[in-house]
Amino acid sequence: MTSSTPVFRRLALIGIGLIGGSIARVARRDGIAGEIVISTRRRETLDRAAELGLGDAYTADMAEAVSGADCVIVSVPVGASGAVAAAIAGSLKPGAIVSDVGSVKSDVVRQMQPHLPAHVHFVPAHPVAGTEHSGPDAGFPELFRNRWCILTPPPGTDPAAVDTLARFWRACGSKVEFMTPEHHDMVLAITSHIPHLIAYNIVGTAAHLEQVTASEVIKFSAGGFRDFTRIAASDPTMWRDVFLHNKEAVLEMLGRFIEDLFALQRSIRFGDGDALFELFTKTRAIRRGIIDVGQDTAAPDFGRQTAEKQG
Amino acid sequence: MTSSTPVFRRLALIGIGLIGGSIARVARRDGIAGEIVISTRRRETLDRAAELGLGDAYTADMAEAVSGADCVIVSVPVGASGAVAAAIAGSLKPGAIVSDVGSVKSDVVRQMQPHLPAHVHFVPAHPVAGTEHSGPDAGFPELFRNRWCILTPPPGTDPAAVDTLARFWRACGSKVEFMTPEHHDMVLAITSHIPHLIAYNIVGTAAHLEQVTASEVIKFSAGGFRDFTRIAASDPTMWRDVFLHNKEAVLEMLGRFIEDLFALQRSIRFGDGDALFELFTKTRAIRRGIIDVGQDTAAPDFGRQTAEKQG
Repeated sequence: MTSSTPVFRRLALIGIGLIGGSIARVARRDGIAGEIVISTRRRETLDRAAELGLGDAYTADMAEAVSGADCVIVSVPVGASGAVAAAIAGSLKPGAIVSDVGSVKSDVVRQMQPHLPAHVHFVPAHPVAGTEHSGPDAGFPELFRNRWCILTPPPGTDPAAVDTLARFWRACGSKVEFMTPEHHDMVLAITSHIPHLIAYNIVGTAAHLEQVTASEVIKFSAGGFRDFTRIAASDPTMWRDVFLHNKEAVLEMLGRFIEDLFALQRSIRFGDGDALFELFTKTRAIRRGIIDVGQDTAAPDFGRQTAEKQG
Repeated sequence: MTSSTPVFRRLALIGIGLIGGSIARVARRDGIAGEIVISTRRRETLDRAAELGLGDAYTADMAEAVSGADCVIVSVPVGASGAVAAAIAGSLKPGAIVSDVGSVKSDVVRQMQPHLPAHVHFVPAHPVAGTEHSGPDAGFPELFRNRWCILTPPPGTDPAAVDTLARFWRACGSKVEFMTPEHHDMVLAITSHIPHLIAYNIVGTAAHLEQVTASEVIKFSAGGFRDFTRIAASDPTMWRDVFLHNKEAVLEMLGRFIEDLFALQRSIRFGDGDALFELFTKTRAIRRGIIDVGQDTAAPDFGRQTAEKQG
């Protein structure tokens, strides 16, 4: 999709990892932003972004980066959101849209909102997309295609600003949904945070066994384990912050998961085959639902055979 | 790889689902078996195998299928292994190799061995390969390529018979490893059975929430959840039997998993970011190991983007 008029004349990206780097690539390729200014804390990341030609201007000074921008998108680990908001607050242009891409929303609102001046529009967002790779090299322009972007504007936010940001994300390929931050955090706890937590956990368990060696775990991983290692290879800083900043929802959902796991454990211990069969049959329907709405491929093994043949 | 001489003159396959159907396809394509006789309990599955042209002869009578066979491979849910052994025992040719493909080995040995006559060679096997699809249509000849097949011959098994079966699996594309049934069951509990159990469990938990609807779970599954649904779409009968028949090893590994999960829960509750970061960093190394030994693709998201573009 190529926009004839850019959605934003000047877009400032604070943080240029997988998400920021993908926004830069699609915005530039499809003319969604007139000019892209990139800022990030680490000098070598900024230099790499410049080498890759992701933007039009690069600066380590966040305040400088946002001055004159129509939209500022903060793509940093959620624990750093408050500090970024404080650093840019004084340089924001009146009427600018300030947004983020954090996987947690209530806490990001709590961190950022107090710093932001009344003359900007704060529209938190979360594109539900990603891969296990991180850094500016990992981004690609199709990352958001056919994926949902959830906007959680605080009550009273200017509808025109919300609309403009939604238009931006649709131009990036996303489908847009609206929620309260609290509901978002609950939905993502079960669809993303708990899956990551248990993936990290089982990989950790496997690494610490006395009965089975790490090299055996690696060799025989095709029986299922390898799927979990992909998720457990995700960015450690990002995920540490997700768990620290979505604590309540994660603990709530984790409690449910553990309760159900104990019921399953009991079914195995007492040989209740019917209970196992019933659960294992129900779960197939959810998979079909995900494929039907285009959120995953129906190819066996995620089409890995195809990827391997090409690789 | 095309063998000039078939490894087996006549191969009998009991059960013709994903695994049996894949053996049939590769054995026929590469001339690894001279003649393939297929037998399965359900009439419609047998008819479908015939329609697909997977073998040279088809019969619902297992005893008839194995008579004259140099090798019999039983590919049924592990709970049915004993009954199959009992049904075929009287018709096995002296010197024949009897094997299986079950994901559990100690219990399969316990079930099958008492029935088998002394004049056959019993060499249990487990090809560590599969997809979430099942049935004769799901098989494909490359399923075993670059995957491990674990043989667990009981002490005293004729080395020539073990060697012949190993040669068969290598001709099918597998790498071959040897273990005791007990060690196999422990290795597979952590690399395959527990991953399946927790995948089934989280999909079940998600399906039963009051705070988040099933349609939201499906819509926003790209944040990680969808990876688990693939595994949780695996054949319910097969997996029910795995958990019922590898109970001790599964409960042992599940205990370890839960213990570690409680430690993680505690780190989240008390905001111990360093403990989280340390775990999330260590788990990346295991992923790298799996990619380095060629047991998974390094393409982001398992190369799904590629699969989607082609699909």
